[in-house]
Amino acid sequence: MKSDELLALFLRRGVLWPTAEIYGGAQGLYDYGPLGAALKRRIEDAWTSWFVGLSPDYYRIEPAELLPEAVVRASGHLENFTDPEIVCDACHTPFRAETVLEAVRPEGVDGLSVAQIAEIAHANHVKCPRCGSEALSVPAPFNMMFGVDFGVTGKERAYLRPETAQNSFLAFPRMWEVGRHALPLGVAVVGKAYRNEIAPRQVLFRLRAFTQAELQIFFDPEHFDRPIDPFRDVRLPVLRVERRERGEETPEFIRAEDLVASGGLPAFYVHHMVQFHRFFREVLAYPEESIRFFEKSEKERAFYNKIQFDAEVRLESFGGYKELGAVHYRGDYDLTRHAEGSGKDLAVTVGEGRSVLPHVLELTFGVDRNLWGLGDLHLRTEDARTVWHLPPFLAPVSVGVFPLIAKAHGAYAQRLADDLARAGLTVQYDAASSIGRRYARIDEAGTPYGVTVDAGTLDEGPEHDTVTVRERDSRSQARVPVGELVGRLAGALRLPRPPRI
Amino acid sequence: MKSDELLALFLRRGVLWPTAEIYGGAQGLYDYGPLGAALKRRIEDAWTSWFVGLSPDYYRIEPAELLPEAVVRASGHLENFTDPEIVCDACHTPFRAETVLEAVRPEGVDGLSVAQIAEIAHANHVKCPRCGSEALSVPAPFNMMFGVDFGVTGKERAYLRPETAQNSFLAFPRMWEVGRHALPLGVAVVGKAYRNEIAPRQVLFRLRAFTQAELQIFFDPEHFDRPIDPFRDVRLPVLRVERRERGEETPEFIRAEDLVASGGLPAFYVHHMVQFHRFFREVLAYPEESIRFFEKSEKERAFYNKIQFDAEVRLESFGGYKELGAVHYRGDYDLTRHAEGSGKDLAVTVGEGRSVLPHVLELTFGVDRNLWGLGDLHLRTEDARTVWHLPPFLAPVSVGVFPLIAKAHGAYAQRLADDLARAGLTVQYDAASSIGRRYARIDEAGTPYGVTVDAGTLDEGPEHDTVTVRERDSRSQARVPVGELVGRLAGALRLPRPPRI
Repeated sequence: MKSDELLALFLRRGVLWPTAEIYGGAQGLYDYGPLGAALKRRIEDAWTSWFVGLSPDYYRIEPAELLPEAVVRASGHLENFTDPEIVCDACHTPFRAETVLEAVRPEGVDGLSVAQIAEIAHANHVKCPRCGSEALSVPAPFNMMFGVDFGVTGKERAYLRPETAQNSFLAFPRMWEVGRHALPLGVAVVGKAYRNEIAPRQVLFRLRAFTQAELQIFFDPEHFDRPIDPFRDVRLPVLRVERRERGEETPEFIRAEDLVASGGLPAFYVHHMVQFHRFFREVLAYPEESIRFFEKSEKERAFYNKIQFDAEVRLESFGGYKELGAVHYRGDYDLTRHAEGSGKDLAVTVGEGRSVLPHVLELTFGVDRNLWGLGDLHLRTEDARTVWHLPPFLAPVSVGVFPLIAKAHGAYAQRLADDLARAGLTVQYDAASSIGRRYARIDEAGTPYGVTVDAGTLDEGPEHDTVTVRERDSRSQARVPVGELVGRLAGALRLPRPPRI
Repeated sequence: MKSDELLALFLRRGVLWPTAEIYGGAQGLYDYGPLGAALKRRIEDAWTSWFVGLSPDYYRIEPAELLPEAVVRASGHLENFTDPEIVCDACHTPFRAETVLEAVRPEGVDGLSVAQIAEIAHANHVKCPRCGSEALSVPAPFNMMFGVDFGVTGKERAYLRPETAQNSFLAFPRMWEVGRHALPLGVAVVGKAYRNEIAPRQVLFRLRAFTQAELQIFFDPEHFDRPIDPFRDVRLPVLRVERRERGEETPEFIRAEDLVASGGLPAFYVHHMVQFHRFFREVLAYPEESIRFFEKSEKERAFYNKIQFDAEVRLESFGGYKELGAVHYRGDYDLTRHAEGSGKDLAVTVGEGRSVLPHVLELTFGVDRNLWGLGDLHLRTEDARTVWHLPPFLAPVSVGVFPLIAKAHGAYAQRLADDLARAGLTVQYDAASSIGRRYARIDEAGTPYGVTVDAGTLDEGPEHDTVTVRERDSRSQARVPVGELVGRLAGALRLPRPPRI
């Protein structure tokens, strides 16, 4: 599906809509409707179950979204979290400099001064993407954080966090006390982050408020190369810098142990790439051929990232690979900055009495982007019907319950819907229009099972207390005793857990 | 427990801690650690399951926390969302005027001008609560919303929502399309709201960032008095205005149908009070004698609230009743304001072709406050042991899994912990220290079940593949085959659903 088709379907089904729509919307903000909110919660739960489940020493916390100024000063965001812009003097539209200069400077504008950006624009006769004018100016750098006056004095400032990661770093000393006094120690946060983007676009891809799911793993740098598990025979689709420099875009499938042995990557890093890849495959069910781990070069990475592979997925809606997550090795940059900023010693003492300032491995995951990805990759039009082939455990609604004839079978069906809800399933009762149209409605919403109550269910004949269970993907139908329903469906609806190591 | 004892326990167990603690904290902000984050999520899920479960036409959405200025202008927050303050000229501490004047003006300061507040303070020789000086001044009203510059132009403003309710009102037209085109239609939001409180205090009670769970029900005012269900013989603990005026503080137990028949309350309103009360009793397990529905007088209510009962619970930690939720009848105030503000007609056409601007019944619930309430009311010290008697389905961890001797039984116990996690339970494996101390640790964390693997489990004798299940509340122990564990525990861990009507 094209981007605008997918958006139209999402709007029609109430997956999402622009925030404050009756006031004309707010750029870069969306509200999730019932289907979207339920799917988002399922994605978050699945992410948490998987990544926090990787180790008994990985924990989820829920910290505040507002950070006092001292935090973002120490982290460098107050000084450096800027996105150079170019403004058209003719039509007054602001653009991201990186976007406007993409054709003439594909490597981006990070680190360039205002004067250098202006020089590049003028030398290349760059035009305003909107009105075509060459009268472009480059204003002073614009900090992308949303700042607020905090408290009544007018002297304190706080900032909406530009990334959830800062909260994990701040929590490290408490988590060390709460945990087993052992490394590696993982701290996961699922929650909102905020960026005052110059040019929000692509629906859920460049938002001003978005949900991140991140795991920061604090580890002992002396153990970075320690083998974790045999990797068995896992092959990862990677596009390394050398191949990229030869103009390649498709990944190679490289055995995980070769990425360590001859690829120069630490075992602990590759272990988490493998788990990330399994999450894409086994939980989100992204097709193998759509995924690549895209290595960022030294020039492209933030200076504190020593190794970075973006977890990219090819989306038809945007005609190419999009970053849906990443694996970063941030060294000891963050704890060093916060130790300096706070004046607190953040080193810990490990086993043999050795003092260690932990290094950080960071797994990032964009919840909104992946919600879109699940639409892009699993919504298909088949025989004039739109079917959302979501993995059953991610579906916003697990079971549709239908009386064949509302008047005759409605009471039984409603009681059944209620019983299934009490057993912990998410259920939608629907008695309106033909059974075929009701199936079509749940197919489009990704509901994996439809249960129909008919005359046989109520009669004292051989079909007494049985119902028809119809599967979304196979469209197969089977007669099932109501007492066996929960047991039959529960397995497929359970969130997957990571493999035992 | 006293407030500081409960806070100390919460800090020690990593339920919560001050945000940016290594920088000295940020007033009015807390982070939830692993136990707190898990408990908070359980409370949110339980609230959602119960209140959204009240009707198939009640839905949960997840809208953005930032609102454009036009929204808060129309809602009245830009003009009126102020909290008068009094500042001490001697020690420069700002206070809420309402707090400082409490003794001399118990009815509060809503609607008073700056000059009137100053006059009351001076006439009564009110002193600074901190330094005792009488030199107090009253500054211009202070808006409690956090505002941000939105976009790059410097001309647009957005505000962190001061309440989740505004999002529900804005969503009404979309929800009407998504739903069955029928009233009542319920829209639930669980999420952050933000208020720049002058004087944050009482840990989770006056926060600058807090989580609300709210249900806005849009209904046809012509049906407000329509009987919903027979109420059977439910008695609600209410403290009505007339009794309050006679100085009473304890509630009377009044039959729900009498609140309608002779109490003058609409049936639809009382129906939702009953469900709120059941939630407090059956889900959060608050003791009957601790709850009261506290009616607000016309003077105390916001002018758009036509009926208001606060759902209060008596907490030992703060030595009195605290508001943990409320039931508001807001009339058509909100949709009227947003219809005017947006220029959109928000009326809908119901059954007989009648055009209706729906009225709103609002159920509010403070997630943080109730998390504290669950600590206050269910944490008890018994025989020198601290036990958190949380309802099992709310417990952050459902089952502790222990090898009696780590070396001998650890592998089996770890596999069992993993199997239980795969079956959907939240599990904590603990092999450290004596079994008694491990039981004590889970008692304090509210974990309802402890499962111990011992020699009998591994031997080929009569106890082969059985484990000891120990219940937190009764401290009873029973030998259970591992294959039956999930089945035995699952029932008690399932979130309750509201009663069938």
